[in-house]
Amino acid sequence: MRYAVLGTGQVGHTLGGRLVELGHEVRLGSRTRDNTAAVQWAAAAGPAGSAGTFAEAAEFGEVVVNAVGGRVALAALEAAGAQNLEGKVVVDVSNPLAYEEGELRLSPVGSDSVGEQIQRAFPHARVVKSLNTVNCRVMVDPASVPGEHNVFVCGDDPGAREQVTALLGEFGWPADRVLDLGGIRAARAVEMWLPLWVGLFQKFGHGEFNLEVRRAR
Amino acid sequence: MRYAVLGTGQVGHTLGGRLVELGHEVRLGSRTRDNTAAVQWAAAAGPAGSAGTFAEAAEFGEVVVNAVGGRVALAALEAAGAQNLEGKVVVDVSNPLAYEEGELRLSPVGSDSVGEQIQRAFPHARVVKSLNTVNCRVMVDPASVPGEHNVFVCGDDPGAREQVTALLGEFGWPADRVLDLGGIRAARAVEMWLPLWVGLFQKFGHGEFNLEVRRAR
Repeated sequence: MRYAVLGTGQVGHTLGGRLVELGHEVRLGSRTRDNTAAVQWAAAAGPAGSAGTFAEAAEFGEVVVNAVGGRVALAALEAAGAQNLEGKVVVDVSNPLAYEEGELRLSPVGSDSVGEQIQRAFPHARVVKSLNTVNCRVMVDPASVPGEHNVFVCGDDPGAREQVTALLGEFGWPADRVLDLGGIRAARAVEMWLPLWVGLFQKFGHGEFNLEVRRAR
Repeated sequence: MRYAVLGTGQVGHTLGGRLVELGHEVRLGSRTRDNTAAVQWAAAAGPAGSAGTFAEAAEFGEVVVNAVGGRVALAALEAAGAQNLEGKVVVDVSNPLAYEEGELRLSPVGSDSVGEQIQRAFPHARVVKSLNTVNCRVMVDPASVPGEHNVFVCGDDPGAREQVTALLGEFGWPADRVLDLGGIRAARAVEMWLPLWVGLFQKFGHGEFNLEVRRAR
């Protein structure tokens, strides 16, 4: 399948690289066509990898992965163009974290989320929030963390959630470890996990951990 | 030891009952001395259980457990009286959840927390946030959920965190499953877990679950 991966940071690189390894074609999108990180990534990725603007990537992809930071996600997707997102699954893996007053904080938080913002701004896209609860190594290599730990999907289109669950399966997440939280409104819940993730990251000194939901029944 | 448990709802009942079973003396505190739920609880609890106002309970307790809702925690502790909290460990198990616009929301959220509010309002109390991430059955019976699932403590006084960790041990939480997140600022992180807890509660249809943090190293 053809994937657009928007964002040339560590998350975009990691997801794009893994998608190429899995046999997909990937175009990494960034603000400018000559973005050094994207061009170098494409050169290293071989014929299945390419680089372009956000719009060129989104036009190319059958599925669009938002891997830019949550605070700039709307701007990146505006640049990608609503016509290039229409009818497509948009996987939002971002978190709206940034330093404010010397502290990492989420915005929006509580009564809204980036996942919901994207769905509202692009009503003809099929937005699915997923993978934002783990670091990018764990995203594409869940076996790097022991145990039957979980990942979440939410989005208003059940078919899109199923499609993302299948993609997660390619990454190594068995379907029974993908917890479906229903509509995109649940994006606020999975985004609000981040402060605890950051606290555990600071405690452990690394990001290779995840949560496993244990239940009595 | 003598415990004050502020709040006569399910959380207060459950924690108070378990503390009595463990051999402690417990005074359940409420707004009024003749609160029916508290008086009935005390009658059933036997000689180790009693009921009183928030102030009478807090005066009695060597440790004070805040088991009222997070939105009314400050009011309950004001009624308890700063002089009755001074130097004492105050265990805050609350979450500031309430329905707003038809949705369960936290307030404060993101840049503050109930745990921090309490510590600021009562600087001579030794506030520890804990147990707010699980329902009250799991609080006092962690074995009801399978697995090596975790609970958190945070608070500015390391000795108070140790004391609460010991109390958690009495409830059945081995020390290695109690994750110490440091200062009370981390209360905002554990309170922000709640929306995801609520989402899982709605998905499973019950609250007998918890998270286990799995890590690569």
